[in-house]
Amino acid sequence: MNESGRVEAFSDGVFAIAITLLVLEIKVPHDAATHLWSALGAMWPSYAAYVVTFLIIGVMWVNHHTVFQRIARVDRALLFLNLVLLMGVAALPWPAAVVAAYLRDGKAAQVALAVYGLFMVFHALVFQAMWWHLTRTGHLFDERVDVEAARATRARFALGTVVYPVTVGLAFLSAPLTLAVHGLLAVYYAFNQVPVPTKAEPAPAGGGKL
Amino acid sequence: MNESGRVEAFSDGVFAIAITLLVLEIKVPHDAATHLWSALGAMWPSYAAYVVTFLIIGVMWVNHHTVFQRIARVDRALLFLNLVLLMGVAALPWPAAVVAAYLRDGKAAQVALAVYGLFMVFHALVFQAMWWHLTRTGHLFDERVDVEAARATRARFALGTVVYPVTVGLAFLSAPLTLAVHGLLAVYYAFNQVPVPTKAEPAPAGGGKL
Amino acid sequence: MNESGRVEAFSDGVFAIAITLLVLEIKVPHDAATHLWSALGAMWPSYAAYVVTFLIIGVMWVNHHTVFQRIARVDRALLFLNLVLLMGVAALPWPAAVVAAYLRDGKAAQVALAVYGLFMVFHALVFQAMWWHLTRTGHLFDERVDVEAARATRARFALGTVVYPVTVGLAFLSAPLTLAVHGLLAVYYAFNQVPVPTKAEPAPAGGGKL
Amino acid sequence: MNESGRVEAFSDGVFAIAITLLVLEIKVPHDAATHLWSALGAMWPSYAAYVVTFLIIGVMWVNHHTVFQRIARVDRALLFLNLVLLMGVAALPWPAAVVAAYLRDGKAAQVALAVYGLFMVFHALVFQAMWWHLTRTGHLFDERVDVEAARATRARFALGTVVYPVTVGLAFLSAPLTLAVHGLLAVYYAFNQVPVPTKAEPAPAGGGKL
Repeated sequence: MNESGRVEAFSDGVFAIAITLLVLEIKVPHDAATHLWSALGAMWPSYAAYVVTFLIIGVMWVNHHTVFQRIARVDRALLFLNLVLLMGVAALPWPAAVVAAYLRDGKAAQVALAVYGLFMVFHALVFQAMWWHLTRTGHLFDERVDVEAARATRARFALGTVVYPVTVGLAFLSAPLTLAVHGLLAVYYAFNQVPVPTKAEPAPAGGGKL
Repeated sequence: MNESGRVEAFSDGVFAIAITLLVLEIKVPHDAATHLWSALGAMWPSYAAYVVTFLIIGVMWVNHHTVFQRIARVDRALLFLNLVLLMGVAALPWPAAVVAAYLRDGKAAQVALAVYGLFMVFHALVFQAMWWHLTRTGHLFDERVDVEAARATRARFALGTVVYPVTVGLAFLSAPLTLAVHGLLAVYYAFNQVPVPTKAEPAPAGGGKL
Repeated sequence: MNESGRVEAFSDGVFAIAITLLVLEIKVPHDAATHLWSALGAMWPSYAAYVVTFLIIGVMWVNHHTVFQRIARVDRALLFLNLVLLMGVAALPWPAAVVAAYLRDGKAAQVALAVYGLFMVFHALVFQAMWWHLTRTGHLFDERVDVEAARATRARFALGTVVYPVTVGLAFLSAPLTLAVHGLLAVYYAFNQVPVPTKAEPAPAGGGKL
Repeated sequence: MNESGRVEAFSDGVFAIAITLLVLEIKVPHDAATHLWSALGAMWPSYAAYVVTFLIIGVMWVNHHTVFQRIARVDRALLFLNLVLLMGVAALPWPAAVVAAYLRDGKAAQVALAVYGLFMVFHALVFQAMWWHLTRTGHLFDERVDVEAARATRARFALGTVVYPVTVGLAFLSAPLTLAVHGLLAVYYAFNQVPVPTKAEPAPAGGGKL
């Protein structure tokens, strides 16, 4: 049953493919031979959506890896939750493409960013469900993990599921600002992610939350 | 000849790529700036096809892995059967896209779901052929596998090849219902898949059937 | 310098991605709600191109793996030849798509199949160059390989570079027949590929030729 | 913290996918049944962009691997720099597609090649930043690396960031020539890349620069 390594390798593959497929969202401008610079410049929403979503998937991958490197056993529920998580990750090129297509379109931009935020809410919820499942009994962790301390991080995890709904609301104030906030959140988490608590360090830390 | 690991890694790659390519089937609505919410809502067949097919490929991957982790040797026939199996898996983004395009189109939706079901029939047949080949002599399994018990699971396997033809017929009663059934079957198999019988557990179990 | 494993893993990735991208060549018929069965039937060239090219890339992968599992060291020339080989493999979805688009178009079908055959010629030539480079000194092989015997297989390898030019000519007699021949050649090589000669078996065998 | 292997595997995946996605830039000519040869011939910019970009990504992968095989530890900054590097690599199919679309269009071709060159400048800068970070303290390297010698290669690295801005300027003299120069640079680096200096060989060599 110890097949955590294979599950992680498969998941890594999905992350790597999803992150690389993002580029397909950036189109080549048609019939722009006479004004290619300006045509390329007008595509800034595509570039912004690419950069922000690339960082987000990259940080998601780091978080996923941080948790899975402490998992020694895989049960059906974890396998299923992980599949649902990957379903959200692999889908991200689509909201990114919607944002790229409508970021300059007033009302539609707000809708696009709200949808984008909902994907992040979905990811946060599934990741939290996975964390609850893992910390409930702790029997899937390897022996280094301090299960008590890990369980104590659940509240901090719940915070993560508060931030992203806020970005959904923020979308209706300013779509470009909301996209920037998503980018900044990704950069923040890239440097501030907290490790899974281990017995050596009986710490108050969270577990690779996004 | 023991290259089961490499074959499995290659197969895992194909599964991971096929599952991630599914998102390309979900299009960005054009010229919908004035009504993006409703345009996105009208695309529900794309979302349904994505979710169901994602689960199906995910569960296929688990089943494939369950069998291959018990294989110690690879012969030409297994290599070829595996290639034919992967040919069906890698093709799945296409019937998913056909379903997404025609699920709201009465008669055409029935055709789309019938085609979708035929792909599942194909997969079941090839998987069964692989299982027959493996259990015929059993010399490709590692030594833990109880070959007698594994051979005894063939009948249960044949059941799998009965369910999917039924979904082809069901498509002509209700296309959306048929898609839902495919999704439910995937969830069912996610939790009820039976392991390859090993000598420690001389069990009546089937072998990673879909 | 012994990084044969990483080069093979990278190459495996390219093979797996190219083989899975083939499905993008199979389009969803537009505006066919009233006649979806016939519209899908009319797309048989797409299915044929998919199946044949899938088998070809699959067999190429097996051949590539057969050779690389006997390689212990990688030099710059091998790295470069391998990159050129992968350049041809990764390009195959394109001639497959050209064949799919024009297989029913008389003269154009002949051109499409000729181009398809030229890709196979290219692959055969690069694979042969790699084999010559490997067998020239033999110092990149692991110690089990019988370098003398391996070198003796060069002539048989050259045969491979004769078959594919013939398919280019054959394209101008019958395009569909030529596609079928490509498929049959792939199936033939799937079962008749010869191993790299090792010292235990000082054999007259070829080295994983396509 | 020693997760250099996983980071490299993830990066390898992104390189392999980006290099294989390049083929999607080569389109199938429409409505060319009566003149397929000439229609295919007119697409030479697509082929040129494919070949050159394939070689570039391939050589980038070799360089990336050369550096990472000497890294024993990964910190947040390296993880982030690597993510930014991959962001540029994964984006390359896009400038390649722009070049393919406009290489025959006078002024627009110049713009396309300038953009292409800017991507290479970006890559050179990020790679150099990564090299500075690695050689600053050297504590991420494994113990074989001669950190002093590695630091001394920084100047040679800076040279790399001079060559690519020149190609941006060259684009405005001749776009096709500039594309050819990019291809030649890739071939040059494929054979002339210098290893990370190790203590056994206390050498004046550079570190896997592009």
